[in-house]
Amino acid sequence: MKEISGGVVAAKGFQAAGIRVGVKASALPMEEQTGEGKKDLCMVLSDSCCSVAGMFTTNQVKAAPVRLTREHIASGYGYGVIANSGNANACAPNSRLHALEMCRAAAEATGHQPEEFAVCSTGVIGQELNVKAILEGTPRLVAALHADECASDEAARAIMTTDTVKKEIAVETMVGGKRIAVGGIAKGSGMIHPNMGTMLSFVTTDCAVSPAMLDRMVHEIVPRTFNRVTVDGDTSTNDTFLVFANGQGGNETICQPGEDYESLKEALMYVCTQLARKMAADGEGASRLITCLVEGARSEETAERLAKAVVGSSLVKAAMFGADANWGRVICAMGYSKAPFRPEYVDIKFASSAGEVLVCQQGNTVAFDETLAKKVLTQPEITIAIHVHDGDSSAECWGCDLTYDYVKINGDYRT
Amino acid sequence: MKEISGGVVAAKGFQAAGIRVGVKASALPMEEQTGEGKKDLCMVLSDSCCSVAGMFTTNQVKAAPVRLTREHIASGYGYGVIANSGNANACAPNSRLHALEMCRAAAEATGHQPEEFAVCSTGVIGQELNVKAILEGTPRLVAALHADECASDEAARAIMTTDTVKKEIAVETMVGGKRIAVGGIAKGSGMIHPNMGTMLSFVTTDCAVSPAMLDRMVHEIVPRTFNRVTVDGDTSTNDTFLVFANGQGGNETICQPGEDYESLKEALMYVCTQLARKMAADGEGASRLITCLVEGARSEETAERLAKAVVGSSLVKAAMFGADANWGRVICAMGYSKAPFRPEYVDIKFASSAGEVLVCQQGNTVAFDETLAKKVLTQPEITIAIHVHDGDSSAECWGCDLTYDYVKINGDYRT
Repeated sequence: MKEISGGVVAAKGFQAAGIRVGVKASALPMEEQTGEGKKDLCMVLSDSCCSVAGMFTTNQVKAAPVRLTREHIASGYGYGVIANSGNANACAPNSRLHALEMCRAAAEATGHQPEEFAVCSTGVIGQELNVKAILEGTPRLVAALHADECASDEAARAIMTTDTVKKEIAVETMVGGKRIAVGGIAKGSGMIHPNMGTMLSFVTTDCAVSPAMLDRMVHEIVPRTFNRVTVDGDTSTNDTFLVFANGQGGNETICQPGEDYESLKEALMYVCTQLARKMAADGEGASRLITCLVEGARSEETAERLAKAVVGSSLVKAAMFGADANWGRVICAMGYSKAPFRPEYVDIKFASSAGEVLVCQQGNTVAFDETLAKKVLTQPEITIAIHVHDGDSSAECWGCDLTYDYVKINGDYRT
Repeated sequence: MKEISGGVVAAKGFQAAGIRVGVKASALPMEEQTGEGKKDLCMVLSDSCCSVAGMFTTNQVKAAPVRLTREHIASGYGYGVIANSGNANACAPNSRLHALEMCRAAAEATGHQPEEFAVCSTGVIGQELNVKAILEGTPRLVAALHADECASDEAARAIMTTDTVKKEIAVETMVGGKRIAVGGIAKGSGMIHPNMGTMLSFVTTDCAVSPAMLDRMVHEIVPRTFNRVTVDGDTSTNDTFLVFANGQGGNETICQPGEDYESLKEALMYVCTQLARKMAADGEGASRLITCLVEGARSEETAERLAKAVVGSSLVKAAMFGADANWGRVICAMGYSKAPFRPEYVDIKFASSAGEVLVCQQGNTVAFDETLAKKVLTQPEITIAIHVHDGDSSAECWGCDLTYDYVKINGDYRT
C-alpha cells in the first residue's frame, strides 16, 4: 500500500475547508498550549455525486446530527459533510432544528439539496449550539473550499477538540486496472471505545463502487479498526464514520464482491487502521500507544474481547504509564473479559523497538530481566503480545496509557 | 440499626488477630505515608463451629485460595479464616500447595481440621508466595488471638494493601427475641467493580442460622452491596466475601424465610452496605465518595445498570475530581449502559451536604447556578441523583472520583 499526500482531498474531485466561526467560544486547554485547532467548522465536498456509507455511535443517546445524517445517507448517495467542533449539539435545545439548519446552509451555499449533506458535531453535550455563527460562516466556508495539499490539514484541524495532533492519511492502489486514491481525516482522543466513542472520521475515494458494496465494506472494516480502539471505555453520543466514493477514478463500478472489491477494501482497511492507531496514540493525556495482540484464540471474537479487555483496563493502562511489567494485571483483565481461554496456557510478552521480554509462560511467572523490561516499556509504542494456545485466530486492539494529564484534561473540560 | 463497637469480634465467641510475618517485603507506598498496614497475616476464629457462606470473584482467573476456600466451605460449616496481604498467591508457582499449607498451619495451631478453614490472599499477582514466613508465623498469629476491642482493628489492618483506612463496623439487632450482633472487616480500594474486584470481607455473627439460609441471604445481599461498588472497572482474581454464624446468640436457629430471617438480613445488609461505601470512598487516590441513585426505573436491574455505568465512567469520575457539573457525561454514560430508558424523560441533580442543584430536566439542559454547583461538588460525598420517569424501581451504586493519585498509585505498584 503506497502512502501519498493529500489526506481527504487526495482522491480526484474532492475539496475541503476548515475555518473559524466562533462555536468554540473559549479556547480549550490543549489549544492554548499548541495554538492549533481553533478552527471549528469543516466541510468536505465532492464535485460529483457520491456513493455514501457510514457507521454511527451505538450509544442510546444519539445526538441530533447523528440521527439526521442516518436519514440523509439512507438513499446511499450524497455530496459531502458539514461538521463543527466545540459543541456536540446533543441533549440541548433545538438540536434537531440546528442540525437541519446546518444542512440547509450547506445546500444553499453549494447549490445542492439539504438531504445530500451529512452533518456532524463534536464537543460539549448539553449546551445550545451557536448555530447563528455557523449559518453566517457557511458561505465563507464554501468559498474556502479547495483541493490543495493544506485543504485536508485545515479540515482535520476544524474537527479537533482535545486532540493534540490532527489525523490524516491517504493511499493509492489499483482497482480494475485504474489508479485510485483513498484518503481521510479523523478526530478523537477522549471517550474512544469499542463502538467509536467520540470520534469523527471522513474518508473519500475516487473509486467507483455501488452504495450497497460500500456499505458492506464499511461494516466489515469498522469493527476491525475504529471499534478496536479504546481510550477510556466511554462511548459518545456523536460518533460518526462516513465514506464518500465519487467514481472519478474511472474503474468499472464495483457492484459485487470479487477482486476489485477486495482491492478497495484493502486500501480502505489500511486508511482506517492508520487513523484508528493515530486516535489511540492521541488518547487524552496519553504518552504511549499500546497495542494488544492476542494470538492462538479459538475465534477472532474471543481474541478481540481478550485484547480489548487488556487495553481497556485502567490498571494495565496505569502500569504502562509507569513502565511497570505488571503482567498479573494483564491476565486479570483477560479473566474478567468473559472470553473463553485457559489461564494455564497463556504466554505474555512485552515488546517494543527496544526488544521483547517474556514475562509469563503457561500462566505462570517466569524470571525476566527487569532492566530490559523497563527499557522495552519506556518506548512510545508498546505491544502486549499474548498467546493463548487454544486455536488459530488473532486480533489486535489499540489503546494508550493512563496518565496524570488524562485526569487533568477531563477534570475540567467544560469550564 | 444500632452501631456498636467491636467490628469482627463484636459477636460472641469470635476472636481475631493481625500480625506482621514479612510477606510484605517492601512496604507499599501508602503504608510509607501512613505508617499503617504493615501487618500482613490475619485470622478470624470462632470458638464453636459456624454456619459459613461466601461469594467469590467471577474472574475466570481464580487464585488458588479462592478455589480452595470454595471447596472448604462447600460443607456449610467451618471455624474461621486465615488471610495474608502483600501477595495474591495467584498465577504463581505452587499456589495451590501454599494455600493448602496455610490451612494446615491454621488447623494445627488451633486444633481443628484444614478443611474447617477458609484461606485468602491479596496483593501482587504472579510472584511466588513467601509461605515459609506465614507457616512460621501462624503459631504466633494464633497465640495473638483475642476479643478485645483492638482485635478487629489489628485484623482489618493485616489485610490492607493500598487501602488508606481500615474498614470495620458492627451493629446489634433483635432476632427471635434475642440480642444478636453482626460485625465485619473489609479491605479493598483499587480494582473494585461490579463483581467484587480485589476485595476481602469477613463478617461474623452470633445469630443461629442454617448454612442454607445464610447462603441464600448472602446471595441476596452481595449483589446489592459489594457488587454495587465500582472503582476502576477491573475485577480481581482473589475477591472473597465470607460470613460466619456461630449461633451463640441463643436465638432459635433460622431454618426458613420469615421474620427472623428478615431481621438478620437487615443487619447483614446494613453491615455490608457500610463496608461497601467505605471501600468506594477509599478507592485508590479517591478524594470523593460518589453515590449514584437512579429512581423511576422500570426494574431494579435497569436502575442498577444505569447507576453503575455512571459511577464507572472515567469521564464522570474525572469531572467529579474537577468539581465540574458536566451532566452531559452522566447521560452519555447512561446511554452506553445498554439499559433501557428514554433520554427525553431524564432529570439529573447533583447533591451533597452543601445543597442540591438540578442540571438536566427532561433530557435537556436547564439554567443553573454554577457557583452553587461548584459548592455542592467540592464536598467529600456527592450524590448524582437521576430520575428516569419510567417506573417505580431504584438502585444506588457507589464509586469515587478519578485523581492524579490513582494514576500515581497504579503506575508503579509492583516495584
